[in-house]
Amino acid sequence: MPATAIILLSGGLDSATVGAIAHADGFALRALSFRYGQRHATEIAAAKTVAAALGTVEHVIADIDLRVFGGSALTDDIAVPKGAETAQEAAAHGASEIPVTYVPARNTIFLSYALAFAEARAARDIYIGVNAVDYSGYPDCRPEYIDAFTAMAALATRAGVEGQPVRIHAPLMEMTKDQIIRRGLELGVDYGLTRSCYDPDPSGAACGRCESCRLRLAAFEKLGMRDPVPYQ
Amino acid sequence: MPATAIILLSGGLDSATVGAIAHADGFALRALSFRYGQRHATEIAAAKTVAAALGTVEHVIADIDLRVFGGSALTDDIAVPKGAETAQEAAAHGASEIPVTYVPARNTIFLSYALAFAEARAARDIYIGVNAVDYSGYPDCRPEYIDAFTAMAALATRAGVEGQPVRIHAPLMEMTKDQIIRRGLELGVDYGLTRSCYDPDPSGAACGRCESCRLRLAAFEKLGMRDPVPYQ
Repeated sequence: MPATAIILLSGGLDSATVGAIAHADGFALRALSFRYGQRHATEIAAAKTVAAALGTVEHVIADIDLRVFGGSALTDDIAVPKGAETAQEAAAHGASEIPVTYVPARNTIFLSYALAFAEARAARDIYIGVNAVDYSGYPDCRPEYIDAFTAMAALATRAGVEGQPVRIHAPLMEMTKDQIIRRGLELGVDYGLTRSCYDPDPSGAACGRCESCRLRLAAFEKLGMRDPVPYQ
Repeated sequence: MPATAIILLSGGLDSATVGAIAHADGFALRALSFRYGQRHATEIAAAKTVAAALGTVEHVIADIDLRVFGGSALTDDIAVPKGAETAQEAAAHGASEIPVTYVPARNTIFLSYALAFAEARAARDIYIGVNAVDYSGYPDCRPEYIDAFTAMAALATRAGVEGQPVRIHAPLMEMTKDQIIRRGLELGVDYGLTRSCYDPDPSGAACGRCESCRLRLAAFEKLGMRDPVPYQ
């Protein structure tokens, strides 16, 4: 029986690729998604479809309420910026600002739940699709952050104390978006099932203008391909 | 205007004392409680009462669902052990077992939410009532765990990256339960408002037999006092 890995699955392009990588690494997959302060059900629906396509043995959707603290365009009722420069573009000309779409401590909360899930299922491996290239403005998308979380996790849990600390895999960390897509296509990922838009219309069609859409569209274009998801 | 501190407030004896210590340290208090896989509303009601008594400027109750993963007597529908030895008693004769009431990664999830709350309110200080004496069997109640979480948090957030990392205060870490109560009484804590029982009856009266009740009763007895909360 293959060992189990927990994969954090948003239903987006990155996490679908991470799931395919974890599967290729030989793991049986248990997916974890979050229903939180989102204005659209599109993301959860995509996560379910992607989880099924990946052949996960379990898919847990945890309800969490990040709106109680406020502080981000992704959880508050403030506008998602359209056509503004991406974090990558900002970093390219030296801006160090953290994007408005940053949610305080989000990856820490997500990884904490993944840690609980891993311990409850005796899994030692957690996969997360963080990426330091496209999300250079997010403090919790950097390798040093993942290393520090791993060190903390080794002290936090029964398994860690008993000599079986979790390993956190962030295989996309140093990849550009087009490299991520190329790797996913090699592994058979159907990107038509994924959803990345911060602000889709009621039918689930992507806006094509938010940071997430623009990064994705540019990467497919760079590969000479058309993004298979519907746009408005 | 005093600086703000986030306090993790369960409504129990320990967190009420921590709140009083944070107040004595000069902070304005913002309390954070969790509604999660609990079989009783008693704990939340006590948290609200204690928050009011502490004069907190804000009290956020976050809904989290730790039951989705299972794995503990406090969140599953399995019996809370009655009359079993406490973690402290077990440690005293060399047993190294982790108690059945341990919830996987619970303090990591709680502190992650506190970290989000701190960042959203520009607070640099978080108070938590963990204790290595009474809860020696819990990996996430040790000083080395708190230090590792602090190191991770400094890398996880905008404030940390910008040179204002959070400080996590665990003032009860090395105190025995009777020392905690003595300190709280000096600070004017009304322990009649607090609730510690793992298994209260519908009226909120404590069972007097679970690990938490027994630690508490023994501490009041050691001080030559009667615990002011109602018992069945």
